[in-house]
Amino acid sequence: MACFVFSGVLPGQTSATLSVMPMPASVKLGDGWFAIGPSLHFSVKGQDDSRVAHAIARLVNNLTTRTGIPVRNATDKDSPSFIISYAAPGGKVQSVDEDESYRLTVTATQVHLDAPGPLGILHGLQTFLQLVSIGPNGFVVPAVTIEDRPRFPWRGLLIDVSRHFMPLDVVKRNLDGMEALKLNVLHWHLSDDQGFRVESRKFPRFQELSSEGQYYTRDEIREIIQYARDRGIRVVPEFDMPGHSTSWFAAYPELASAPGPYQVEHKWGIFDPAMDPTRESTYRFLNDFIAEMTHLFPDAYFHIGGDEVNGKQWDRNTKIHEFMQKHGIKDNHALQAYFNQRLQAIVGKHGKIMIGWDEILQPDLPQQAVVQSWRGQASLAGAVRLGHRALLSYGYYLDLMQPASLHYSVDPLAGDAASLTAEEKQRVLGGEACMWAEFITPGNIDARLWPRAAAVAERLWSAAEVNDAKSMYSRLEVVSQDLEFLGLIHSRASRLMLQRLRGGNDVRALQVLAQVLEPVKEYGREDGREYDSFTPLNRLVDAVPPESDIARQFAVMVESWISHSSGSGDLDAMKKWLVLWQNNDQELEPILQGNSLLKELIPLSQSLQTVATTGLQALDYLDHGGRAPAGWREQQLTMLKLVEKPQAELINMIAPAVEKLVLATTPQ
Amino acid sequence: MACFVFSGVLPGQTSATLSVMPMPASVKLGDGWFAIGPSLHFSVKGQDDSRVAHAIARLVNNLTTRTGIPVRNATDKDSPSFIISYAAPGGKVQSVDEDESYRLTVTATQVHLDAPGPLGILHGLQTFLQLVSIGPNGFVVPAVTIEDRPRFPWRGLLIDVSRHFMPLDVVKRNLDGMEALKLNVLHWHLSDDQGFRVESRKFPRFQELSSEGQYYTRDEIREIIQYARDRGIRVVPEFDMPGHSTSWFAAYPELASAPGPYQVEHKWGIFDPAMDPTRESTYRFLNDFIAEMTHLFPDAYFHIGGDEVNGKQWDRNTKIHEFMQKHGIKDNHALQAYFNQRLQAIVGKHGKIMIGWDEILQPDLPQQAVVQSWRGQASLAGAVRLGHRALLSYGYYLDLMQPASLHYSVDPLAGDAASLTAEEKQRVLGGEACMWAEFITPGNIDARLWPRAAAVAERLWSAAEVNDAKSMYSRLEVVSQDLEFLGLIHSRASRLMLQRLRGGNDVRALQVLAQVLEPVKEYGREDGREYDSFTPLNRLVDAVPPESDIARQFAVMVESWISHSSGSGDLDAMKKWLVLWQNNDQELEPILQGNSLLKELIPLSQSLQTVATTGLQALDYLDHGGRAPAGWREQQLTMLKLVEKPQAELINMIAPAVEKLVLATTPQ
Repeated sequence: MACFVFSGVLPGQTSATLSVMPMPASVKLGDGWFAIGPSLHFSVKGQDDSRVAHAIARLVNNLTTRTGIPVRNATDKDSPSFIISYAAPGGKVQSVDEDESYRLTVTATQVHLDAPGPLGILHGLQTFLQLVSIGPNGFVVPAVTIEDRPRFPWRGLLIDVSRHFMPLDVVKRNLDGMEALKLNVLHWHLSDDQGFRVESRKFPRFQELSSEGQYYTRDEIREIIQYARDRGIRVVPEFDMPGHSTSWFAAYPELASAPGPYQVEHKWGIFDPAMDPTRESTYRFLNDFIAEMTHLFPDAYFHIGGDEVNGKQWDRNTKIHEFMQKHGIKDNHALQAYFNQRLQAIVGKHGKIMIGWDEILQPDLPQQAVVQSWRGQASLAGAVRLGHRALLSYGYYLDLMQPASLHYSVDPLAGDAASLTAEEKQRVLGGEACMWAEFITPGNIDARLWPRAAAVAERLWSAAEVNDAKSMYSRLEVVSQDLEFLGLIHSRASRLMLQRLRGGNDVRALQVLAQVLEPVKEYGREDGREYDSFTPLNRLVDAVPPESDIARQFAVMVESWISHSSGSGDLDAMKKWLVLWQNNDQELEPILQGNSLLKELIPLSQSLQTVATTGLQALDYLDHGGRAPAGWREQQLTMLKLVEKPQAELINMIAPAVEKLVLATTPQ
Repeated sequence: MACFVFSGVLPGQTSATLSVMPMPASVKLGDGWFAIGPSLHFSVKGQDDSRVAHAIARLVNNLTTRTGIPVRNATDKDSPSFIISYAAPGGKVQSVDEDESYRLTVTATQVHLDAPGPLGILHGLQTFLQLVSIGPNGFVVPAVTIEDRPRFPWRGLLIDVSRHFMPLDVVKRNLDGMEALKLNVLHWHLSDDQGFRVESRKFPRFQELSSEGQYYTRDEIREIIQYARDRGIRVVPEFDMPGHSTSWFAAYPELASAPGPYQVEHKWGIFDPAMDPTRESTYRFLNDFIAEMTHLFPDAYFHIGGDEVNGKQWDRNTKIHEFMQKHGIKDNHALQAYFNQRLQAIVGKHGKIMIGWDEILQPDLPQQAVVQSWRGQASLAGAVRLGHRALLSYGYYLDLMQPASLHYSVDPLAGDAASLTAEEKQRVLGGEACMWAEFITPGNIDARLWPRAAAVAERLWSAAEVNDAKSMYSRLEVVSQDLEFLGLIHSRASRLMLQRLRGGNDVRALQVLAQVLEPVKEYGREDGREYDSFTPLNRLVDAVPPESDIARQFAVMVESWISHSSGSGDLDAMKKWLVLWQNNDQELEPILQGNSLLKELIPLSQSLQTVATTGLQALDYLDHGGRAPAGWREQQLTMLKLVEKPQAELINMIAPAVEKLVLATTPQ
């Protein structure tokens, strides 16, 4: 497989017509196509890993769903052949070092899929599935040769199940989504202030007192690990400590740095409770706990969190002060470093490699510890220069409601990391998209993750040069639909949430408004309103996708029309949209009035009308010489600035494009 | 509970605003409403059946899904109370004789649900969930007193898993749908010519040779039975014999009336193979098999099929002739009667009551056998007069693509059954909707069942006088959405199938066409085309719902406008639709041209344009005095008759309404 050279993506036809995501290292289109029919004859050469057999069964099933043809894995050799061959067996526990490359060769009569190991086969099968499309000859895969391998070996997704618990089926279907996008690590954020989500045999009070009944049994954990392994995905558990640990203390208050009793936290934020790093009993407990958990989770890595310790409990505890003085620990930062060293010894003793967030980085941190950076490439590069391996999560927080293009533009080896040496760059293992769950429920997590997580997946798999947002968005649309066929509910969930708000199927007018709104970005929801884990997340802000496709497309239309003064077709299309928005409030407002959850949208519906009217006026000026009264311009720009402010935690995404139209007029 | 009197449905507001289905026996609206909040305090008095606890947990979960409020079953007594009380425990095996009645009383502060047994509680909880709606005060249930009980004790749904196998999750989510509609029998059609779907311990060749790998393990069967029981649903297995049994012979050819070898059948229809009723070895085998199956399936009833034996194998077998002569059996009908008597003895010996289709009815048939009639009320009444109990399935074949109103209009006690005595009527246990699976896949079974099965459910639960199709349709729309929240995929499946055909998300124009088409009715698909179990069911005929809501609504608009010559509002609405249909082909045809599965729709797309043009012309004539050229009228009526013929197994459902418009003009 050493001959798998990175040869770049062919331009034009290939990347445009093949909606593969992440984009492979090399794609060469051949002549003709391979038709999907009712039977395929699979033969597997070389090894016999059960994961490959399971993946073939899933492919057969997915081809059936994707085409409606009842595809069978046929034993007769007259059926078209799908020949799979891989040389070496996979590790008993999937490792970050395993070769994931593959070569897929499709001709009119046969498919060949070769790889050094089973992981490449799993990935190649997903690529094959993505290549299926319908045309004049039915469902076909084009003749093609794909040579592919990931840029980074660690391509993760963090799911926070502490702040809102995610049932087993939610985790499973999102693992299906991860497999489709070749993401290979589920970073399972299993404990935090708001809940402890794993059954412990040694410490049963965790499930009894720290989970409010919402936890995974040990069997369920094993089921998920097996399910993930089958899909080429490692499962790395995170137990956040010494902070973010209120839920631990609800069960075992003796671990805390201040006397209890404690209760599971229901609010969001950073809280004072922290483990007492000065007591030997803390480490005895952690040793026993980690012994159990490292046994339950076979992965080589063990995440100890380590973020956001505010130190207040330590400051208030005189015994801790005495300990620090006695041991020459100069501040809380150093105290946490001491804790991490002790923890590292325990984690290492149980055969695991420790990972933690930026905050664990200290000169004394043992070099084998891996640093996950939410702070950015500078922090990442700092850790790497100190000899650590590192992961980037900065720029990949999907819960912050940013557009896919923003995440797509963040490269782990850009910015401060660009100046790393080649050898240092090797220590950047990859990155992880993160889904923190303050404002996420089992009902909308799919819609918060997908399809945007695919943009991060491509960033981590494909070459840095694969960075055209337009191509990414066009393929994202196809991926989004593929994921629906897999059972992900992102589209369905958004629609059902609108119907729930409306109290019926007739959501047309509500949808017209919803489609141009986006949820407030970053930490905007934590300003103003009081949220906790009991707050219903059933308003429009929870229902609309993080990114408005229509607003993005409208903005593209506006920009291209302004810069090229292009044809009347664009003008008509823009006008059609603006008229729709202008007239919508008339139909929508009576609906909003009588509904406790919708009435907060009245100003948004009204301002959409206002913005649309302004847009139409601006187009009219622009279409007739471009001159507009100075007073009008000023007035509109002031209005638009006001409209751009969030209302009901939602943002009107049309206003910026209309602002560009107004600015494109010449004041007269 | 004897005081639960059938008091009819209050007219007007009640049935219109409360979208409950099936309509309860008595509904009395009170003042105010009960608000759904984050906590409910459930208390259960009387008995302690685990089904009730599970149903409460499901209700809490469904309320959360339905409202987005994270509802908890709270222990504190300050939360609003939901007080459940039932007097007697349920049977260890649910019986057809159990009392299913309940009384639900909702006030502004409390909910009371009382029933004689757990089944009534299960039903009452479903009614409560259906009462939730959103308004100015958030999600509420109106203050109401509902007294309710079913008209018939047997309200079933047959699912054929032989012709197309339905995986476990498909069966489960449809059991959820059944529970929501208070259907209480899953009639599981487990064997037929095309496959044998149950693992047998005694006869393992069934799963090895008769299932093509698609069968339920014994554990899975038990899982489904438990899942159904938890939802107040009995599971009645059907093993069809002596005909419809080719799959048996693939494993055990010695059972057949002609020498083997046999293979599982892949075509649809009635086939020759039949069990040999003259050999003692047949009955020894059946005795062993039925011993195993009656142990696996705890229900008191055991369905032996018995339909459609063509007798050809018997005619050709001289040993069978000799046996008939020797025993004075005069024809094949009598021979089947002999078989049934022997079978009845075996089924009875294993403690079960035998059920079979109309064909088992013979003067010699033991009276305890139950007859299920696909032939109609005359056949049903005949069986009942002979002392049998009986079920109606005639008129309830959901696979025949009839409108809900048709099924809704079929009453088990109407027609020839109307003249039964009161005592005889008691022997009509109820009925069953049927979903035969020649043209059904796991991907579209939900869309074939729902929401139409709800119309049958209401027919079998509610009073005969509850028969207003308009009210039924308005509630069906709400039920359809409720079912989506439960996880049924009927809407999603139709949409995804369109996207699959189109090869993308942009299905607007295709949907405009699809929304006015219906699949050909009754057995129309078996004419002309050759279908078998390998034929992909992925064309538009497989994607469109059995009933076009838009065509039905358009027809209502047309009828009301013609009969009342009502306002210009209706005229404008009709014109808007017709213009949409008239212009659609222009956008759609290029899409259809390049797609192997869509190109068969070109004539349908073109004729929609033609029909719409005719409709607009007719409206124009009608709006200007009503006189139209006689030649034009004749020409249009001829064209419409042609258009009404199926194309690509699809029917244009707009043509009949347009025909009415043309007929409403006066020839000049």
